[in-house]
Amino acid sequence: MPHEAHRITLARRPKGEPTPDDFGRETVDLPEPSEGEVLVRTIWLSLDPYMRGRMDDAKSYADPVPLGGVMEGEGVAEVIESRHEGFAKGDIVAARTGWASAAVVKGEGLRKVDPSIAPIQTALGVLGMPGLTAFVGVDTVGKAQKGETIVVSAATGAVGTVAGQLAKARGLRAVGVAGGAEKCAYAVDELGYDACIDHHAEDFAEQLAAAVPDGIDVYIEHVGGKTLSAVIPLMNQNGRIPVIGMIAWYNGQNLDQALPLPKVWRTVLTKRLTIQGMLVFDHADRRPDFEKEVGALIRDGRLTYRETVADGLDNAPEAFIEMLKGGNFGKQLVRVGPDP
Amino acid sequence: MPHEAHRITLARRPKGEPTPDDFGRETVDLPEPSEGEVLVRTIWLSLDPYMRGRMDDAKSYADPVPLGGVMEGEGVAEVIESRHEGFAKGDIVAARTGWASAAVVKGEGLRKVDPSIAPIQTALGVLGMPGLTAFVGVDTVGKAQKGETIVVSAATGAVGTVAGQLAKARGLRAVGVAGGAEKCAYAVDELGYDACIDHHAEDFAEQLAAAVPDGIDVYIEHVGGKTLSAVIPLMNQNGRIPVIGMIAWYNGQNLDQALPLPKVWRTVLTKRLTIQGMLVFDHADRRPDFEKEVGALIRDGRLTYRETVADGLDNAPEAFIEMLKGGNFGKQLVRVGPDP
Repeated sequence: MPHEAHRITLARRPKGEPTPDDFGRETVDLPEPSEGEVLVRTIWLSLDPYMRGRMDDAKSYADPVPLGGVMEGEGVAEVIESRHEGFAKGDIVAARTGWASAAVVKGEGLRKVDPSIAPIQTALGVLGMPGLTAFVGVDTVGKAQKGETIVVSAATGAVGTVAGQLAKARGLRAVGVAGGAEKCAYAVDELGYDACIDHHAEDFAEQLAAAVPDGIDVYIEHVGGKTLSAVIPLMNQNGRIPVIGMIAWYNGQNLDQALPLPKVWRTVLTKRLTIQGMLVFDHADRRPDFEKEVGALIRDGRLTYRETVADGLDNAPEAFIEMLKGGNFGKQLVRVGPDP
Repeated sequence: MPHEAHRITLARRPKGEPTPDDFGRETVDLPEPSEGEVLVRTIWLSLDPYMRGRMDDAKSYADPVPLGGVMEGEGVAEVIESRHEGFAKGDIVAARTGWASAAVVKGEGLRKVDPSIAPIQTALGVLGMPGLTAFVGVDTVGKAQKGETIVVSAATGAVGTVAGQLAKARGLRAVGVAGGAEKCAYAVDELGYDACIDHHAEDFAEQLAAAVPDGIDVYIEHVGGKTLSAVIPLMNQNGRIPVIGMIAWYNGQNLDQALPLPKVWRTVLTKRLTIQGMLVFDHADRRPDFEKEVGALIRDGRLTYRETVADGLDNAPEAFIEMLKGGNFGKQLVRVGPDP
């Protein structure tokens, strides 16, 4: 019996901000899974800023999505049919389903999700790639130490949420940067940041400086733009900047909001900064330590998180476009199918 | 009996390139050394690009030289009178004498020089701070591995000379960048670089690209400017850039020869580059390993070096100005006094 999949494709490459017309829709019959493959139906789809990069025809750490191809992404899904010995019908898994209601995927790429630990969609958020990204940024690349000051851009986003709370649990001063009073209030009141600065404020740079009286030791970089410009002069000697994203610049906008390279270089030199681009897939070996430390925080109720949910796969493009403008609050998800 | 010292001072802060009028001269009677101090007479003075930074009134890793103060610097000197138990009259030491014919210095800051190993001025070059800088850049920060490609800017300078030969001894492909055909010929013929590109060439970027068919894994950064612009697009995944200097930008010139920060940031992100500012004084713990590896190369005659010598302390300012323009060849020294 053939299995139908509804999918979102890349209809054309965006010029600047993506628009709804950049996406297409298709319904196809999936092939039967071959040996080692698994047929899954998607329950939750994760939307992440890195996907914007894949829409461009530019060399990156991964190939771009081809024109007409299915948009890439990770989902939480239920196994419908398995030809891999590690998985059985009814298992819940995290899988690279793409923006699709169902997919045939290789068994090796799957990660089992235990529904008894936490809601299954956390496998896409605090316990998934964004959570591991935050852990690697704070711990492995950022080398955050007790008593230091960390600044987290996109402080209430999926990564920032975990980065800030992890840093607080480790005894750092944590200052968030977010867009708008509501997000900043949430960052301080719910996530426990010591302070949060609204990057829309006219005196943003002054406010940030005032919030870091001892300078900045670690800056979790997601955004580029004027946040980066304000951060660089405040960095302490031997400061670390894990570069996870540059959302302000993905669409080719805000390019005027950039310090001149010689100024950045002078600070790198005199302060002996380390700036390190990072991709979570390079750090899979950190997952056990991540699950131990962040898992304990979740179990103890010490890790709060929030989700923005779009209902139905057809609404994924608009939710994605909105997310790139900062319209989401916490982890951006798409509800693709019902719970098992 | 008072001891006289002739000294070069900072008469005014340079605007852009330093000029002779930015320097002053004075002759003073030195005080007697106190307990723990040593009186030395300078034999050799080292001139180094970092000194340009100290002439500006800008926050850096060290305080600026105050107006009217003695220019800072390291020399090789003979002990005239010692009130430190570790040193005796007649010892040869490397000391922070400043640009001075004699100085009273603290005993703790001194390093004994053994004249039987190599000419004593090598304590300011291949066996001194520049040599250790090269070692830390290639080894500790650059993490250079056999089979990788390293590009060394200022390839025939005091640091580059050691960096290139150390990299070759470790089995890397080493490509130098230097100013002019003479330096490039020396880099290849004498220092053993696989290739050397003249940064004055119109098609410099194309020539550099052709010289690194497998891309660049480590870039030893001394210069900024157009060399950096040509290097960034050629960096390989997980590439490392130890930032030691930015000589093209020290004088506030060539600021137009800089990639836009968003372009650099995109490369940092997609290639997972590590850019790390470094200062040799932070890495004193690497000296034993440095002396072992580089000392062995010198003993075996496998490490070549060249010196440019200015005769007499009064000629130090002009030699320094010339060096910043690339007029030196190898290690720039000033002969301040006779050998013992």
